[in-house]
Amino acid sequence: MQRIEHRACFGGWQDVYRHRSQVLGCDMTLGVYLPPQAQDGARLPVLYWLSGLTCTEQNFITKAGAQRYAAEHGIILVAPDTSPRGDDVADAEGYDLGKGAGFYLNATQAPWAPHYRMYDYVVGELPALVEARFPASDARAISGHSMGGHGALVIALRNPGRYRSVSAFSPIVAPSQVPWGEKAFAAYLGQDRDAWLQYDATALVAGAGERLPLLVDQGDADEFLEPQLRPQLLRDACAAAGHPLQLRMQPGYDHSYYFIASFIGEHIAHHARALA
Amino acid sequence: MQRIEHRACFGGWQDVYRHRSQVLGCDMTLGVYLPPQAQDGARLPVLYWLSGLTCTEQNFITKAGAQRYAAEHGIILVAPDTSPRGDDVADAEGYDLGKGAGFYLNATQAPWAPHYRMYDYVVGELPALVEARFPASDARAISGHSMGGHGALVIALRNPGRYRSVSAFSPIVAPSQVPWGEKAFAAYLGQDRDAWLQYDATALVAGAGERLPLLVDQGDADEFLEPQLRPQLLRDACAAAGHPLQLRMQPGYDHSYYFIASFIGEHIAHHARALA
Repeated sequence: MQRIEHRACFGGWQDVYRHRSQVLGCDMTLGVYLPPQAQDGARLPVLYWLSGLTCTEQNFITKAGAQRYAAEHGIILVAPDTSPRGDDVADAEGYDLGKGAGFYLNATQAPWAPHYRMYDYVVGELPALVEARFPASDARAISGHSMGGHGALVIALRNPGRYRSVSAFSPIVAPSQVPWGEKAFAAYLGQDRDAWLQYDATALVAGAGERLPLLVDQGDADEFLEPQLRPQLLRDACAAAGHPLQLRMQPGYDHSYYFIASFIGEHIAHHARALA
Repeated sequence: MQRIEHRACFGGWQDVYRHRSQVLGCDMTLGVYLPPQAQDGARLPVLYWLSGLTCTEQNFITKAGAQRYAAEHGIILVAPDTSPRGDDVADAEGYDLGKGAGFYLNATQAPWAPHYRMYDYVVGELPALVEARFPASDARAISGHSMGGHGALVIALRNPGRYRSVSAFSPIVAPSQVPWGEKAFAAYLGQDRDAWLQYDATALVAGAGERLPLLVDQGDADEFLEPQLRPQLLRDACAAAGHPLQLRMQPGYDHSYYFIASFIGEHIAHHARALA
């Protein structure tokens, strides 16, 4: 694991690492924020952040302003890239399939299957690496934006006990029912729509192994609200399943990092309470 | 004046405007953050932020995280571009001369003279525009980073009574004595080094018309500390002139926006006290 950026930030360090991923079969970069408390020798809880379409690890670490709150609460922030990378990794035209658009799933179809295994990477390899390399405890929380909000919800719902808390900004809550998800899932998972449901938060809440409360913020001026995000589908599914959901429609906010920056402090406080 | 971006942010609005500048003879963009208090009908104080080499209005508004503090204190943030722009505006090879490198001066030399008048733009046209168009009072503060820190210090020192407070991050304090400044000033102002001193904060403190305290933050791991920034030259000049200076060397911090983000809250609190 090679450190390629190292920058003082709010009394701690915003670093970027490059490492060889065994799961993905390629080199990956990730942002790691170590708050000031990381110098005290204690093992700290970790918030994993999953970014949206087109993003790398850079978007969250440069634009969200999350480090201030992580420093206040003594939480490590880990922000992976959004897909496998490299010249031998399959790609497609358009921003919503291939590189930058891994959708946090394990692809089963050619040409995606060998590398596109972001689900296994985020659930398994990444926390193992983080907990071995940094002063990180196994107290984990997970959050994300848009495609990454989808990833956070799906990963938390499918792994009971693995995360203390979960939240999402502007998530794709029902990828099986919206254009972004239908395009990506057909390519990565094939035409059998039943196979899609294991990566669809709205489908997963009914059978969730624990009733971990979902915190979701959604701007009502989000340019992707229809037809891509459709939070009412998650609300209806949670109501039917009796799954706790706090869905906050935020008036005037759009899909940008200005929205994330405005509420990331509340999300980190939410996770800090669960991680304490 | 045309609004080209409009994004909800910390209860207010992060906007970007395009307007025709009479002083610069070109179209210019600027970031304007209107805090929630702007909706109350009161006229609010304004903090002008001058960015560094290569920047546009976007760097500060997307990376500094300043909106949170502006919202807390009820301050409008105005972030102009760093040079004139457009196909008929002179440019040069390299990032440190021409577009993106206006140095907040009025050029006297060809081919720069017709457009490169960022000093007059920032001192005169911009606040006149802001105070006419937005709920802005004439209570002004000014700050900036690197080349923009130079601009903030020079503009405040040369215009007694016009700004209630001034601060800078990693400023070029003595452009007449460092490579960035020598290259730019020779091109924009010609070979007469006496003409350079009107744009050199270290030279200006001795004759400053008021003893406005200078707040300067400088990272001690800044990759440009030598030979470009050299804050000790300003410290010595202020000591000799009896000009109040708070120069804070911040251990471990570099030249990036992670540094700015870490201390912009303290700077905005400093300005808020002066603007109250």
